[in-house]
Amino acid sequence: MARVVVDVMPKPEILDPQGKAVTGALGRLGFDGMSVRQGKRFELEIDGELDDARLAEVHRAAEMLLANTVIEYFTVRVEDAPASASPPAEQGA
Amino acid sequence: MARVVVDVMPKPEILDPQGKAVTGALGRLGFDGMSVRQGKRFELEIDGELDDARLAEVHRAAEMLLANTVIEYFTVRVEDAPASASPPAEQGA
Repeated sequence: MARVVVDVMPKPEILDPQGKAVTGALGRLGFDGMSVRQGKRFELEIDGELDDARLAEVHRAAEMLLANTVIEYFTVRVEDAPASASPPAEQGA
Repeated sequence: MARVVVDVMPKPEILDPQGKAVTGALGRLGFDGMSVRQGKRFELEIDGELDDARLAEVHRAAEMLLANTVIEYFTVRVEDAPASASPPAEQGA
């Protein structure tokens, strides 16, 4: 069992209305000088061993389904251990 | 100018219908043995210097606006340099 994280973000040249809305809301709440872009985070639990072939498969899955590569880019990275079963207690609790 | 990333994920005990839908779609596309949870990724460009007070402000913003802490947890981490202006060319292009 391996954990892979795929981050999907709007390309820099693409408008990001969600991020703009969040940026505006932060300003109205008094949080100044923060500019936000919003994307998606996918945490994949991969059965079996994570070899190069399996990682290439994750790349293909990201390209085919998780990201719209016309307007988004994605990054794939391997995380050491499944962490979401124990979210950091000091944050966001 | 500093870059801070806030990752927001559904808590482990919370159902994640988006992630379930993605997991099902992956299976139908032939990507087996992958289980997905879907969350959000916020990239914040912070004006000025990122001292402890400013980082605490980001925490408050995440808690107030970016995450719904009843059902989601979040992590805040500082990234070295603004990267989204130059997405990794080898991925997701």
